[in-house]
Amino acid sequence: MDELRLRLDVNNMMADAIGEHGITDAELEAVVPKAAEAFDYFAKNRGTGMMGWSELPYNQDEVVKELLEVAAFVRAKFKNFVVLGIGGSALGPIALQQAINHMHYNELSDQKRNGPKLYVEDNVDPERMAALLDVIDPKETCFNVITKSGSTSETMTQYLIIFDILKKALGDKAVDNIIATTSADKGNLIKLVKSEGFRSFIIPDGVGGRFSELCPVGLLCAAVCNIDIKKLLEGAAYMDKMCSEADIYKNPALMAAAMQYIAMGKGANISVMMPYADSLKYMADWYCQLWGESLGKRVDLNGNVVYAGQTPVKALGVTDQHSQIQLYTEGPFDKVITFLAVDNYRTDVTIANGCEDIAAVNFLCGHTMQELIKAEQLATEYAVMKSGKMSHTITLPVVNEFTVGQLLFFYELETAYAGAMLGINTFDQPGVEEGKNATYALLGRPGYEEKKAELDARPAKNSKYII
Amino acid sequence: MDELRLRLDVNNMMADAIGEHGITDAELEAVVPKAAEAFDYFAKNRGTGMMGWSELPYNQDEVVKELLEVAAFVRAKFKNFVVLGIGGSALGPIALQQAINHMHYNELSDQKRNGPKLYVEDNVDPERMAALLDVIDPKETCFNVITKSGSTSETMTQYLIIFDILKKALGDKAVDNIIATTSADKGNLIKLVKSEGFRSFIIPDGVGGRFSELCPVGLLCAAVCNIDIKKLLEGAAYMDKMCSEADIYKNPALMAAAMQYIAMGKGANISVMMPYADSLKYMADWYCQLWGESLGKRVDLNGNVVYAGQTPVKALGVTDQHSQIQLYTEGPFDKVITFLAVDNYRTDVTIANGCEDIAAVNFLCGHTMQELIKAEQLATEYAVMKSGKMSHTITLPVVNEFTVGQLLFFYELETAYAGAMLGINTFDQPGVEEGKNATYALLGRPGYEEKKAELDARPAKNSKYII
Repeated sequence: MDELRLRLDVNNMMADAIGEHGITDAELEAVVPKAAEAFDYFAKNRGTGMMGWSELPYNQDEVVKELLEVAAFVRAKFKNFVVLGIGGSALGPIALQQAINHMHYNELSDQKRNGPKLYVEDNVDPERMAALLDVIDPKETCFNVITKSGSTSETMTQYLIIFDILKKALGDKAVDNIIATTSADKGNLIKLVKSEGFRSFIIPDGVGGRFSELCPVGLLCAAVCNIDIKKLLEGAAYMDKMCSEADIYKNPALMAAAMQYIAMGKGANISVMMPYADSLKYMADWYCQLWGESLGKRVDLNGNVVYAGQTPVKALGVTDQHSQIQLYTEGPFDKVITFLAVDNYRTDVTIANGCEDIAAVNFLCGHTMQELIKAEQLATEYAVMKSGKMSHTITLPVVNEFTVGQLLFFYELETAYAGAMLGINTFDQPGVEEGKNATYALLGRPGYEEKKAELDARPAKNSKYII
Repeated sequence: MDELRLRLDVNNMMADAIGEHGITDAELEAVVPKAAEAFDYFAKNRGTGMMGWSELPYNQDEVVKELLEVAAFVRAKFKNFVVLGIGGSALGPIALQQAINHMHYNELSDQKRNGPKLYVEDNVDPERMAALLDVIDPKETCFNVITKSGSTSETMTQYLIIFDILKKALGDKAVDNIIATTSADKGNLIKLVKSEGFRSFIIPDGVGGRFSELCPVGLLCAAVCNIDIKKLLEGAAYMDKMCSEADIYKNPALMAAAMQYIAMGKGANISVMMPYADSLKYMADWYCQLWGESLGKRVDLNGNVVYAGQTPVKALGVTDQHSQIQLYTEGPFDKVITFLAVDNYRTDVTIANGCEDIAAVNFLCGHTMQELIKAEQLATEYAVMKSGKMSHTITLPVVNEFTVGQLLFFYELETAYAGAMLGINTFDQPGVEEGKNATYALLGRPGYEEKKAELDARPAKNSKYII
């Protein structure tokens, strides 16, 4: 498997390569003890509390067996598979599907697709719900309702609407069209599993939303779409082993975390993920939640107000060379760019001959699209380096379940390490409560009368500032 | 039409609403003269040089007629319409299609769709090209090749591959399957138009890529997909009129530009666009190019090194409440959030009864999805305001061609004003040359031997930093 090992190259983070806005060897050496502490903290606490996700590559033999059985049932019985979930329940499934399966999966013939169509519904826009119902027949559709607490308003809204439609169409048999993925003993969805009799999978206690892709949250959807979930977990375990030392020079996730930690200290409050492959496009979305929600914290573990966090940005190579590279090369020294490169794309297309009289085009002929996209990746890396901006590159030998498993686990580890170095709680999200409570108040949920009164008492807006 | 007028609300940018990290009345008053100068500069120069885009709402009667004729021909003859373009040639078409047409447009039956399927190919990933060819028959497909210069490597690569396939399949008739959108007299694509005999539309000289959505670049694709391009241009003209005064309190684009200018000065190097509608999701991508590439500049017009630019970030409400709001509320004071709100979605879905024993869910029942998404938008605006972070809201009464026309033109004007206030060249992109040239060198384009030598002479990477 070593030929499928991911590689991290941080040369272009360093002052040696990019000049005064880079990281010096001395700066890197200075954080080595802190990085080692973060490593120890994680090593000591992994598998406990909200770090249960770290053991997912190892403790799911039984679950995987059951997932594959249920997936086979779904594949045999249903034409569509719809994920009802939001945040961590949606971003991983979308990213993995895009990475592994055909780029126009839903448009393939049934035979070529060889599995149900997939829709991931991660919003409560009524136009979107109506559009979904225009293209699927709920009777022929399996709905995977994913929420740990069973009180996520968006997901439960979708559930209420869909289960009502199913009951009207199928009566008692509607139950067969729902699979719930939720907490084992607390929360509302597990109550419904018991009262309605839905099939279900468990989200383990120590697995938060943004760390849940490698548990049934992500695995069921993947298995239904014929993605090899065993290989995915093997890839994660492989990365875990790659990151088993406290030495940053032997632990890529720890090195990356140390680099970002130093960069943040130097004013890089932005982290761009720029994959050079359409297949990895939505990995950036998954990363944005993981990094943003984990590190964006007002206070540290000692209660000091720190307003920590680096804003994640998604980009796509080569596409965004024509959108963002002007800013990245000429704009402020405020960001770290992560390029995701690929050694071998799964197919290639030769650029045909033509335009013999146009030198500015004809030089392309005879090259392949792989050569072009890889040249552009290297060239952009070079241009960003020359502009003095920080970047680093993670290379996937090829995009498959094993390498994507590595990538997912790499980022989960990097996030855990970076959070430990920042001294914040990496695994909570207290900042989302205010908005949730205000929503409850606006919709008249009992118990939120006080919040409603607070909202009603807002000072009137100044009409001068409304144009 | 006034009931379809966009509204800008900047109350939550102000210190009165959000406290110490907000903008004071005095700070705003202090930039009024600069804003007025920017207004005058634009008013004086509009329609000239690279500001030709400002007249697109007014000078295209003939072009629109021709576009509608060609669109009718395409709609009658072809099953698919593929845009071959990148950057400004792709982002606008994608954004507009998502805003106006069905969210699963390509999956609808031919009858319901009532027009060809649409694909916008804005990358050179070979896997993606192969995937496209799996789902379309090129013989039944019209390809719109869009590049002003005709030397955009990505677009010309796609053109070479596709035209070769078409010639092999159709012989001389292959020409009918290509429409070129390009510069009238310079560049390579217009040469091909003349030598091959392709149908063509002209990109006017004063219209740069990121300001091109309202010229044939965006309009042909829209017309083919049955989008009312006249209403779109009327919306743009309407916004132009809304922004016809130098007084920031009477010119929403100027007010928004002034706000961003002040915010940048206070350290907000990030601008988030967060539409609360799946239909407006890709407006954020279009905005990211416009804002990032226009304002990200190393030097100002006097040659001073300024490293200007605010990094645009795309988000989606309510989806990204479960991904980014934790960071936005609890993280650093480094961003301005723009909410795009909608008064009336084009459809609604009632949340069915159920979960009678679960109070945390049952309160949703009887409400509609519109009520929920609008409550969440208000609640998030409130939470962001309470956290002391800057935001403002643009409200579209409804999403249609007229309001989207307003929105596009609003942002073009805001960008022009902001660039003028920063004193930079808003309309060039010198920073993309380095990467382009390095790509040419790597692929052996004649004339780039020196750059190739420079690349070959790069110091070896330090293996210590490769893990």
